[in-house]
Amino acid sequence: MIENSSQTKKFQKELNAGTSSLILLSVLSRSGEAMYGYQIAKLLGQNGPDFPMMKQGALYPVLRSLEENGLLESLVEPSVSGPPRRYYKITKEGQVALEEWLDIWKQTKKFVDSILKG
Amino acid sequence: MIENSSQTKKFQKELNAGTSSLILLSVLSRSGEAMYGYQIAKLLGQNGPDFPMMKQGALYPVLRSLEENGLLESLVEPSVSGPPRRYYKITKEGQVALEEWLDIWKQTKKFVDSILKG
Repeated sequence: MIENSSQTKKFQKELNAGTSSLILLSVLSRSGEAMYGYQIAKLLGQNGPDFPMMKQGALYPVLRSLEENGLLESLVEPSVSGPPRRYYKITKEGQVALEEWLDIWKQTKKFVDSILKG
Repeated sequence: MIENSSQTKKFQKELNAGTSSLILLSVLSRSGEAMYGYQIAKLLGQNGPDFPMMKQGALYPVLRSLEENGLLESLVEPSVSGPPRRYYKITKEGQVALEEWLDIWKQTKKFVDSILKG
């Protein structure tokens, strides 16, 4: 049982690896303005409080990696209520990637579901 | 453009990492009998010839990894028409994992699509 549950964690982690990047690009593309981590986490929380991927701490490495790869850009700004905040914005490259990824997501769902249904 | 396209490959690869294991467990659960790699590849090919994950060579490492983790078991048998074949069968642990993974897949699709729709 422990074996299974660790396999299941691995499966969940693999699925989240791809989908979390897709979600972040999509949220930032739609928002039309730069957003900081906590703001994004709150927005995602409205859609499904039980989804493990949404834990705030898990967002930051994905945001950083998307920025390193040129799909997001960021700017640090002072905050009135606490430490400075890093605001993220989608780049043109990010928009192009998002379009491609949406297609891949759609195709993957279709293919996987066709196999699962047999 | 090269940058983007390598990012897109990475995204596709991440999505496939989880879904390919799910698909293989599902196919072997439904078949009711042991199957060898080429047989599985042919079956998947009927559902969508353009899906990159289905390339036959890509199946083998996933089958091996599922076996190493106790979700599949295998048996080598001689073949009349060529070299011996390794037949894979789902284990009880594999069945339990499959049920859990189907739930996770359903939840992940629901969550991601709710975010994408905004």
